[in-house]
Amino acid sequence: MDHIDAYWRAANYLSVGQIYLLDNPLLAEPLRPEHIKPRLLGHWGTTPGLNFCFAHLNRVISERAQDMIYIVGPGHGGPAAVAHAWLEGSYSERYPDVSQDVAGMRRLFRQFSFPGGIPSHVAPETPGSIHEGGELGYSLAHAYGAAFDNPDLVVACVVGDGEAETGPLAASWHSNKFLDPRHDGVVLPILHLNGYKIANPTVLARIPEDELLKLLEGYGHRPHLVGPSHEEMAATLDTVFDEIAEYKDGQDRRLPMIVLRTPKGWTGPREVDGKPVEGTWRAHQVPLSGVRENPAHLAMLEEWMRSYRPEELFGSDGRPVEDVLRTVPRGPLRMSANPHANGGELLRPLALPDFRRHAVEVKSPAVQSNEPTRVLGGFLRDVITGNPRNFRLLGPDETASNRLSDVFEVTDRAWEAEILPTDENLAPGGRVMEVLSEHLCQGWLEGYLLTGRHGLFNCYEAFIHIIDAMFNQHAKWLESAQKIPWRRPVASLTYLLSSHVWRQDHNGFSHQDPGFLDVVVNKKASVVRVYLPPDANTLLSVADHCLRSRDYVNVIVAGKQPVLDLFTMDEAIAHCTRGLGILPWASGDQGSEPDVVLACAGDVPTLETLAAAAILREHLPELKVRVVNVVDLMRLQPPSEHPHGLPDAEFDTLFTTDKPVIFNFHGYPSLIHQLAYRRHGHDNLHVRGYREEGTTTTPFDMAMLNDIDRFHLVMDVIDRVDGLGAKAAHLRQRMSDARLRARAYTREHGEDPAEIRSWTWPAEYSS
Amino acid sequence: MDHIDAYWRAANYLSVGQIYLLDNPLLAEPLRPEHIKPRLLGHWGTTPGLNFCFAHLNRVISERAQDMIYIVGPGHGGPAAVAHAWLEGSYSERYPDVSQDVAGMRRLFRQFSFPGGIPSHVAPETPGSIHEGGELGYSLAHAYGAAFDNPDLVVACVVGDGEAETGPLAASWHSNKFLDPRHDGVVLPILHLNGYKIANPTVLARIPEDELLKLLEGYGHRPHLVGPSHEEMAATLDTVFDEIAEYKDGQDRRLPMIVLRTPKGWTGPREVDGKPVEGTWRAHQVPLSGVRENPAHLAMLEEWMRSYRPEELFGSDGRPVEDVLRTVPRGPLRMSANPHANGGELLRPLALPDFRRHAVEVKSPAVQSNEPTRVLGGFLRDVITGNPRNFRLLGPDETASNRLSDVFEVTDRAWEAEILPTDENLAPGGRVMEVLSEHLCQGWLEGYLLTGRHGLFNCYEAFIHIIDAMFNQHAKWLESAQKIPWRRPVASLTYLLSSHVWRQDHNGFSHQDPGFLDVVVNKKASVVRVYLPPDANTLLSVADHCLRSRDYVNVIVAGKQPVLDLFTMDEAIAHCTRGLGILPWASGDQGSEPDVVLACAGDVPTLETLAAAAILREHLPELKVRVVNVVDLMRLQPPSEHPHGLPDAEFDTLFTTDKPVIFNFHGYPSLIHQLAYRRHGHDNLHVRGYREEGTTTTPFDMAMLNDIDRFHLVMDVIDRVDGLGAKAAHLRQRMSDARLRARAYTREHGEDPAEIRSWTWPAEYSS
Repeated sequence: MDHIDAYWRAANYLSVGQIYLLDNPLLAEPLRPEHIKPRLLGHWGTTPGLNFCFAHLNRVISERAQDMIYIVGPGHGGPAAVAHAWLEGSYSERYPDVSQDVAGMRRLFRQFSFPGGIPSHVAPETPGSIHEGGELGYSLAHAYGAAFDNPDLVVACVVGDGEAETGPLAASWHSNKFLDPRHDGVVLPILHLNGYKIANPTVLARIPEDELLKLLEGYGHRPHLVGPSHEEMAATLDTVFDEIAEYKDGQDRRLPMIVLRTPKGWTGPREVDGKPVEGTWRAHQVPLSGVRENPAHLAMLEEWMRSYRPEELFGSDGRPVEDVLRTVPRGPLRMSANPHANGGELLRPLALPDFRRHAVEVKSPAVQSNEPTRVLGGFLRDVITGNPRNFRLLGPDETASNRLSDVFEVTDRAWEAEILPTDENLAPGGRVMEVLSEHLCQGWLEGYLLTGRHGLFNCYEAFIHIIDAMFNQHAKWLESAQKIPWRRPVASLTYLLSSHVWRQDHNGFSHQDPGFLDVVVNKKASVVRVYLPPDANTLLSVADHCLRSRDYVNVIVAGKQPVLDLFTMDEAIAHCTRGLGILPWASGDQGSEPDVVLACAGDVPTLETLAAAAILREHLPELKVRVVNVVDLMRLQPPSEHPHGLPDAEFDTLFTTDKPVIFNFHGYPSLIHQLAYRRHGHDNLHVRGYREEGTTTTPFDMAMLNDIDRFHLVMDVIDRVDGLGAKAAHLRQRMSDARLRARAYTREHGEDPAEIRSWTWPAEYSS
Repeated sequence: MDHIDAYWRAANYLSVGQIYLLDNPLLAEPLRPEHIKPRLLGHWGTTPGLNFCFAHLNRVISERAQDMIYIVGPGHGGPAAVAHAWLEGSYSERYPDVSQDVAGMRRLFRQFSFPGGIPSHVAPETPGSIHEGGELGYSLAHAYGAAFDNPDLVVACVVGDGEAETGPLAASWHSNKFLDPRHDGVVLPILHLNGYKIANPTVLARIPEDELLKLLEGYGHRPHLVGPSHEEMAATLDTVFDEIAEYKDGQDRRLPMIVLRTPKGWTGPREVDGKPVEGTWRAHQVPLSGVRENPAHLAMLEEWMRSYRPEELFGSDGRPVEDVLRTVPRGPLRMSANPHANGGELLRPLALPDFRRHAVEVKSPAVQSNEPTRVLGGFLRDVITGNPRNFRLLGPDETASNRLSDVFEVTDRAWEAEILPTDENLAPGGRVMEVLSEHLCQGWLEGYLLTGRHGLFNCYEAFIHIIDAMFNQHAKWLESAQKIPWRRPVASLTYLLSSHVWRQDHNGFSHQDPGFLDVVVNKKASVVRVYLPPDANTLLSVADHCLRSRDYVNVIVAGKQPVLDLFTMDEAIAHCTRGLGILPWASGDQGSEPDVVLACAGDVPTLETLAAAAILREHLPELKVRVVNVVDLMRLQPPSEHPHGLPDAEFDTLFTTDKPVIFNFHGYPSLIHQLAYRRHGHDNLHVRGYREEGTTTTPFDMAMLNDIDRFHLVMDVIDRVDGLGAKAAHLRQRMSDARLRARAYTREHGEDPAEIRSWTWPAEYSS
């Protein structure tokens, strides 16, 4: 126990040093104001509890040679994770200038939360971490994601009692119904009740203990209460790891967990300026704030730091003494060096089947129809077959709704709760993860990817906004990780958004929102990619590309309803490789300069654009119409803004610099302006898209409500091309009448007119 | 019990009719294909259970004269709520053409999920609803929001078992720790275990019953299990309402709740095409899908509808018979007519103190500093004093951090769990609601506002993204509600976003995200307003305005760190009323045409702009610089796009049509382009803002990382104004050097250079 205590004291000492000290790291001389950082930025409150867990888990790892990683829910306790990595030596291995000696300790202290240094939170920069924890709530979901398909791994996960109030964390407890004892690892939640958030007590620390225990048992756990005592913690951990063995043997389906009650800011100042600090919310950030100016505070800081007896913990050279390190595991068993926490080290590329074999045959463009996501389902089925323990498909109970059901030919939905005879496609270890929580899908997948595996998240388009904030945090993680040489690339996080804004026939306005794309493109160009394949073959090509990519967030928007097949497989590959291009068979400009460009992105806008082009070609054959389809949205940005950006000269060739461009877009129109506003022809760009009009109605009525329909596009062209004359004016009137007729028909009959429903196509395309 | 069963059968009959029938509503003749809707769009599965609850709660209301509203978590069960409102007569009161007779029943059926009709979900169009439920997870939070400060109200809340898997719902159970038995009403959760989601079993339906009961007891409830039986439900409700009385008397702090187990699609087809339907996920949407084409399905539908014995329920005139209506309450006690569910009917304007009394004195602009949110705290304190049971301040444990602590002079944080002697500002009935869940803050506030009260949500800017999806749904609710004449306007939902991107000194990159504004402006101009007051007095003026507004979502971004006071109170009111304007004391154009416009929005960008203008005036006095500050962001849009839009002529006068405009913006630069892209001078508009660069560093380093700092702005001006000559080139070099020096100083000393820190100001402004 003495070794554990020594380790704990050392970690606490190093934590306090990081928060406060610029110099004099070993307190070789009395503390003076100039040793203190001018700005004290960090969080002490949670840190000693985190260090306590680190110290005790190390003993278990060493004794049992247990493969284990550690997720720090209260990620603002960054000093703890950094101290731990430094004590284990892995910090110096990753950052040789932060060596395990006095000079290194000085750098360790100085760099923390300091300009040009490291963040105050656990972050990508922190060895051993897959979890930043700045935005609270995702620790337990990340832990489960890490545990899936890692049967020998234990993921210790400290859940803060503040974090436990969040929705995503509250939902995460039920993740144990999706964990397979045979093929998955184990998550060991450590609910850390230190009693307070920033300025308030926490709910779980203030409910009666019997209620708390019932709650945790209700979550399916065997909870163990531990007070602030080394003996209790050590004995409990021994029990817990025995119970984990029972769980793995199938003797008890309930996983153990720990409830650790400690004072907040434990071992820190009891009282400051007459107010209690240890054990209260006042210990949350920096308990002594006036250290530089206030000699009494300075003295208290010195007393506090010396209370850890640094002279027993570190040699005069600054190296931790042998007693401190006795329980530290070796090599990759060190939690700060565990390769699972740098998943790219373990990443194996997916064994991808040839997506071309799933191609739909297209003899002529725009003749027959397919459901793109259903075709993709066949490909994903083969991906699962080829990667039985390395790939998961996640979604909030929408995999079948999104028509990916072919995957159930080879796998099931993961399910550890009761199974009835009438159930279908439910089994432990299934590759499909379905739970009605976008937060859990996102959190599980992030944990799975960051530990070196692959996956795809399919979701209703509108509801992906539920995880906007999680996407932001993951994108920020990737943005930072890309700059850290020792972080190896991980598989991209790929979203398949279906049941999209234009085809929410069942559900109406609440299910109509294409704005996730706007959230995504605000993040750095180095991490975000957006694709809008208009048919089945382009979806296959895009999906294959995304599953091969690394360190990105890919967003694919694709429909589940039948859409016209536009591209043969070879054409689809070429089109997706270019990212955008002219559809010659739909255009009437025959390679010459067009009079107007009809651009489109997204399946429904593309179909309406093709119909509009056909109408124009039939009725105004002298007008040279060019149809351009955009699959890779980031091609619209200049190369200076995004690596996929199309060079200006090529953009100008495609879109012209002076002709009207009517762009029919899947999402909010402003996004196209945002991406293209630096382009030469921008002033001629006229974008149609979703303008927040919707209800439960027919597909074509939805298009008309938002002016993306074929008839309105024709009117737009006529309004914007000069000198078209009387015939065009007449056509414009016919289009306007056609809209009124379609609207009236729909309201009378409850469905779109037959010629719209069947997407009737001019014979000229069929030859 | 017979009356209850009759009511239930009537509601079920009307629900099936809505999903299927175009005509023949009373089955006066055998069903024929032409009686069936061409597109069958609706959700049957949850509907009979919802109807069951409606039927039984009506008895309780009638017997106890209980004020009660009903929240439908599984809002896709729209047919139930509509059927209920029609049976109670309130539907016909709101929509006279949908009368309580055969013609009205035909319209009722036809309009459902039909073009030009009503949504398939419970929606603003539905009398008695404050909850759409399209995006699952928010029912229980809405219920608590409705119950706060309504001491005599019971809010019955059906929680779907699919919905129960979501994070927000999982967190919501703990809302009972914030409910005051004396001053608040009661929430009665009815967890409806019908066993399945879209295509999967639900977690809570498949865990052992003892685990489920422990879980609910762990949430602090007294759970009562009810099977699919009228007798059980009635007896349990009698017990439950007795227990509610005990709770209100203070005899038991635990609120009762009901766990209702019924088959999914109860009373619907047992089996279709050889597959079980009732009691499985197959009942989720439309159990018989081929009714128009398949005579066997048509016959099953007719058998199903006749199983409710419509001839016993409705007269030949279509009116419900007396037996069906015997338990229906009268007038406003009908849940479908309860005024709490049309909160605008109950809305009383806030008694607002004069915000001018909280003004900071400003003798000269830009001399002394104040913390804007701290000043606002004084105003909010007086708002709370003046509106003791009509206004709540919500935030995820950040009220003190956001420096609104003055409110604690007159109130506390609401707290019903244990209170320790060391606690401060915790008490039952406190006006401040703090829980570490943005979801709960948002959900509670929505429920509170939609039932006719007022509130303010203060939040760290970055983490408001957590409720992006909830914001979307609330905005959509308002967009729809504005078009419904009987929906009375409710108080706006106002966000105060502080601890913003530019001053996250403690927390770094994960806490830096100004993108919520981008999400907001995608919603309809009729509901969204965005304000960026640059100092304390403008914040006061904006806050007062927002608290008086109706049916909007207002977003206020304001700093908590000291910023220079720029406006006297009178000037602030004038500036905020205009929404934007020239700062003459900071400009050097003296009313003439400027050479360059420095525009700014947001406190930190404004300060940097003022500093840049001062540098330019000092060093390039011949350059005519105009400084324009924007408070009301929507002024940038044309009037055709937003009611706040500035007319083009005025915009051109302010910004010129041909001079460079360097716009220093608080958020992502693309938003300014998006808002202003139709303006004449748009090609000259050059926007600086957050470009996703950040870490734990000093405020000025953050500005430099993103090129919004004073030095870079000066460089931008020099780069964009032609013919400035050698002196400007020299100044540009000095600016570049100044940036390097500042960066180096910061990395050496850990804080910004003194002249930056003190925001030193040229003496000329002080006169």
